[in-house]
Amino acid sequence: MPKPELIEQLAETFAEKVPFNKLLGLTFTELDREVCVVKFHNKPDLVGNYIQGILHGGVIASAIDVAGGTMAALGLMQKNPESHPEELLDKLSRLGTIDLRIDYVRPGRGEWFETSARILRVGNKVAVVRMELHNESNTLIALGTGTYLVG
Amino acid sequence: MPKPELIEQLAETFAEKVPFNKLLGLTFTELDREVCVVKFHNKPDLVGNYIQGILHGGVIASAIDVAGGTMAALGLMQKNPESHPEELLDKLSRLGTIDLRIDYVRPGRGEWFETSARILRVGNKVAVVRMELHNESNTLIALGTGTYLVG
Amino acid sequence: MPKPELIEQLAETFAEKVPFNKLLGLTFTELDREVCVVKFHNKPDLVGNYIQGILHGGVIASAIDVAGGTMAALGLMQKNPESHPEELLDKLSRLGTIDLRIDYVRPGRGEWFETSARILRVGNKVAVVRMELHNESNTLIALGTGTYLVG
Amino acid sequence: MPKPELIEQLAETFAEKVPFNKLLGLTFTELDREVCVVKFHNKPDLVGNYIQGILHGGVIASAIDVAGGTMAALGLMQKNPESHPEELLDKLSRLGTIDLRIDYVRPGRGEWFETSARILRVGNKVAVVRMELHNESNTLIALGTGTYLVG
Repeated sequence: MPKPELIEQLAETFAEKVPFNKLLGLTFTELDREVCVVKFHNKPDLVGNYIQGILHGGVIASAIDVAGGTMAALGLMQKNPESHPEELLDKLSRLGTIDLRIDYVRPGRGEWFETSARILRVGNKVAVVRMELHNESNTLIALGTGTYLVG
Repeated sequence: MPKPELIEQLAETFAEKVPFNKLLGLTFTELDREVCVVKFHNKPDLVGNYIQGILHGGVIASAIDVAGGTMAALGLMQKNPESHPEELLDKLSRLGTIDLRIDYVRPGRGEWFETSARILRVGNKVAVVRMELHNESNTLIALGTGTYLVG
Repeated sequence: MPKPELIEQLAETFAEKVPFNKLLGLTFTELDREVCVVKFHNKPDLVGNYIQGILHGGVIASAIDVAGGTMAALGLMQKNPESHPEELLDKLSRLGTIDLRIDYVRPGRGEWFETSARILRVGNKVAVVRMELHNESNTLIALGTGTYLVG
Repeated sequence: MPKPELIEQLAETFAEKVPFNKLLGLTFTELDREVCVVKFHNKPDLVGNYIQGILHGGVIASAIDVAGGTMAALGLMQKNPESHPEELLDKLSRLGTIDLRIDYVRPGRGEWFETSARILRVGNKVAVVRMELHNESNTLIALGTGTYLVG
């Protein structure tokens, strides 16, 4: 398992140095070998359906992709426990989403939202991650599955 | 086919009244019975990989969903040519993405991007739309398929 | 919840009266409000990679779709507890797969396989179901998500 | 471009040596750098909805996966024009479906069916292929997108 400092650094980098994540207001509230949780608050800019004040589908897809990609990055780190930080960083910089699927099961209503991502499999080349997005009442709003290139 | 004024109004509404579309800077450059084209420029806020200046995957997913959903809306309008505007608006307000799949085939590099969406089928309840995102050099960057609830 | 006889009849119908399910040798080992489990044995006819004796990807997709569709049918029955059998049968006959996604996470090796399906949401028109396929050693081989038209 | 004999051998191997392909009755009617076409006839064994005589969704998924995987194999061969047959065979034996998505747009009615597959991108590790299934009247019945591991 990668050292806690490395994990913390990963979360900080993704939240602070990725412009679009900042624009959305994404923060990481959990990140360990089991799960990555990304949280964000509803705000006028993120609305898709202006009549009903519902979250834009693209915001949901974005949060789900970020949680999934971060979890894939952690999976990659767990698979390479002996790697030097530079080597790891190099691998991480080449990590990318191959494909992403989102199921929108309920309208995106709520004050704040949390996306959790759990790894289903990390292979030598591909990681598969499943994601769920809930609102503050724990209502399931969307599901995702992402395939990430990790090798 | 719906009247040109109605189509223009649809595009204007989606571009101007949807906050997140404005945040991304999406504009509609084409919208007819064949295709919906959504265009946007690269800008610092939309970046995902800050080292390489590549578009965030969520931005790509957002643009693809907007093009697909708009095309599904037009498909719905074409299926109901006799409807009164109020009736249509009511139907349109209930239109939603059921699911969305994005294939990221190349890194999102470019000055500006265009997503085109074409309908594959409009049924009584569900529309299936396929999307492609290219940059200004016509390099294919991402593909999408969306299923939309239209009835 | 529909009566046990109705559920049993549903499972029997799907296993016995659907020719392709019989060809694959699918049986229902569990079917209740929580989960639908479909089981089948490996046999020479179902092989895709003849050098390695691995299950054909299409067999995996088939079993996953059957488990998902059956669970969607049960979800539809639970949503309409007061319906007459004829009415239900009519609804069930119009149930169909809108789309299906399969993630192949490990090669399909094993003596027998089980696909479990759990409903994530049953709406008035669409049901979303998630599926997993394991072998007899409980190794995860494939994952699926299906969207089914139920109304 | 690989030699015609190699391509022919590929098609023959997939049609004759893959048990499940034989069970379904799949044949290759076209295979070149542009497209792979897989054909099969409707027959009682392949039916899913016995009341309406409609093709089983799993049969559709199977045919779509076979066309897509074969096209990915050809893409891999085109990317490695200088490889020795043994080397190529080794690469081909490790080719696998990462994930597959099927959109069922119309019921599978018809006497015979054709699935065409076209490559959207072959990278060093992953190929993305899009597929369509039509019946003998050229009615579009299903669409697919597959991601294949090629490196």
